[in-house]
Amino acid sequence: MTAMSERAAQVFSEVQELLCSQLEALDGGAGFGRDAWERPGGGGGLTRVLADGAVIEKGAINFSRVEGEAPAKLKEHLQVEADTFFATGTSMIFHPVNPHAPTMHANVRYFEAGSTWWFGGGLDMTPYYLYEEDAAAFHRSIKEVCGRHEVADYPAWKRWCDEYFHLPHRGEARGVGGIFFDHISGDAEQLLAFMEDLGTNLLSAYLPILERRRDAAYTPEQERWQLQRRGRYVEFNLIHDRGTKFGLQTGGRTESIFVSLPARVRWDYMAEPAAGTPEHTLLSMVRGEPRAW
Amino acid sequence: MTAMSERAAQVFSEVQELLCSQLEALDGGAGFGRDAWERPGGGGGLTRVLADGAVIEKGAINFSRVEGEAPAKLKEHLQVEADTFFATGTSMIFHPVNPHAPTMHANVRYFEAGSTWWFGGGLDMTPYYLYEEDAAAFHRSIKEVCGRHEVADYPAWKRWCDEYFHLPHRGEARGVGGIFFDHISGDAEQLLAFMEDLGTNLLSAYLPILERRRDAAYTPEQERWQLQRRGRYVEFNLIHDRGTKFGLQTGGRTESIFVSLPARVRWDYMAEPAAGTPEHTLLSMVRGEPRAW
Repeated sequence: MTAMSERAAQVFSEVQELLCSQLEALDGGAGFGRDAWERPGGGGGLTRVLADGAVIEKGAINFSRVEGEAPAKLKEHLQVEADTFFATGTSMIFHPVNPHAPTMHANVRYFEAGSTWWFGGGLDMTPYYLYEEDAAAFHRSIKEVCGRHEVADYPAWKRWCDEYFHLPHRGEARGVGGIFFDHISGDAEQLLAFMEDLGTNLLSAYLPILERRRDAAYTPEQERWQLQRRGRYVEFNLIHDRGTKFGLQTGGRTESIFVSLPARVRWDYMAEPAAGTPEHTLLSMVRGEPRAW
Repeated sequence: MTAMSERAAQVFSEVQELLCSQLEALDGGAGFGRDAWERPGGGGGLTRVLADGAVIEKGAINFSRVEGEAPAKLKEHLQVEADTFFATGTSMIFHPVNPHAPTMHANVRYFEAGSTWWFGGGLDMTPYYLYEEDAAAFHRSIKEVCGRHEVADYPAWKRWCDEYFHLPHRGEARGVGGIFFDHISGDAEQLLAFMEDLGTNLLSAYLPILERRRDAAYTPEQERWQLQRRGRYVEFNLIHDRGTKFGLQTGGRTESIFVSLPARVRWDYMAEPAAGTPEHTLLSMVRGEPRAW
């Protein structure tokens, strides 16, 4: 464990506190709980969950800092030789009450094993109704952060995000994308500075979007559509998401992993919206080619 | 394609019709739709879904009969050499409205490739509240069918079911089990006779259970528990179920595969029932050793 691992953990822990405060201030209806846990093999985390808020139906911001003997599955999966590892990260997800407000997911992470280390992270947004200005604002905010750091590559990481958050069995993107990056090494100082800037700004675009959409009127049918689309979110996380799969396989804390799942979800047979509806517009977008927002 | 494949498809198709009628008669509130589909590579199926019934919130009985060139993934997965295959089966799932009524899943199937063929199938029940007499009646009914056929092995298939319907990341069984069997060959005539008897009796124990529980009073808290437990069902089907995984990998019809998922589901963080409650009794059962019902 080097100084960088300590510093990354410190930064990510501060990001968790900052973002929880920002979101609590916006929500006004509920606060984040604090659930500290220890990992039997070494390290632990702090799971912070907000349930039944005024704006957020279910949200979570998790910090973890784990270390110890590297499980065989981890070594195989990450192709590292060292027998011990260190990993820290803050990951978050927000499922709003209002169907006009999008779900957002983000994480920042650092991994180290022997002389190998890297950063990873990303954020992506999943609307239930497509507001082009929201998608554009979300990407603009990410571009701005990336633009401040030589080590960041928005165009490549946007493509990576579009490729990663894709449901092959549905032929659909998860949403409007964002960025995704992994196994990024190089200038450690510059990377840490970027990660801190990114972490600090993870909600810069999202909070104004929530403000814009939180009080939009909606019908029971629109809520039903939201719950059906949340089903796609569950499908992605349980079938495809590498973090979820890897966490479960290596004995991760199940409740902290599954806190990403929405509170209420629906699956209805053949729930295909009619052409010309706003629901169909969303569907056409996720089924189409990734867009330059 | 031999005479047996035709006969198995005929039997399974009749099973679908019979069980749909039985369940419609019981429900009284809604009927099964008919959604015929064709498989691009050959064959097709009939998906029958009942939604928002008086007793069943979401239920499906699917028949399929597919054949053609064997996809590489299928040959690898099933370790067969032949270049063509034939598969037919009827599978079903019922998610009742009332939390005191259990979910039930069952299927009967036949597979053939070149000179290789086998039958498979099973049924299992997932209660939200444990009624021991229901679990006993369910297993007694299966034992009775198996007892009529030399080719059936209830004790071995019950163990197989307990092993298969297990969520390792939760340390929980899916429910009270039932039977599960696969790759069963031998005396084809005797096996077909057993499959027909089993298929015809798939609802023999379940319908009386639904009758007993359909009108039980329940609270919003009990309904919430039901929706949370349905989450486990989704976790099993999306993470572990071989049929689901295999269906998605080989380009199966997504909507027919996911029709097994409940309509309404909840995930709440750390929703652990207090000791001494009926919810805790259920949890202790699924976390304990499999029982001889």
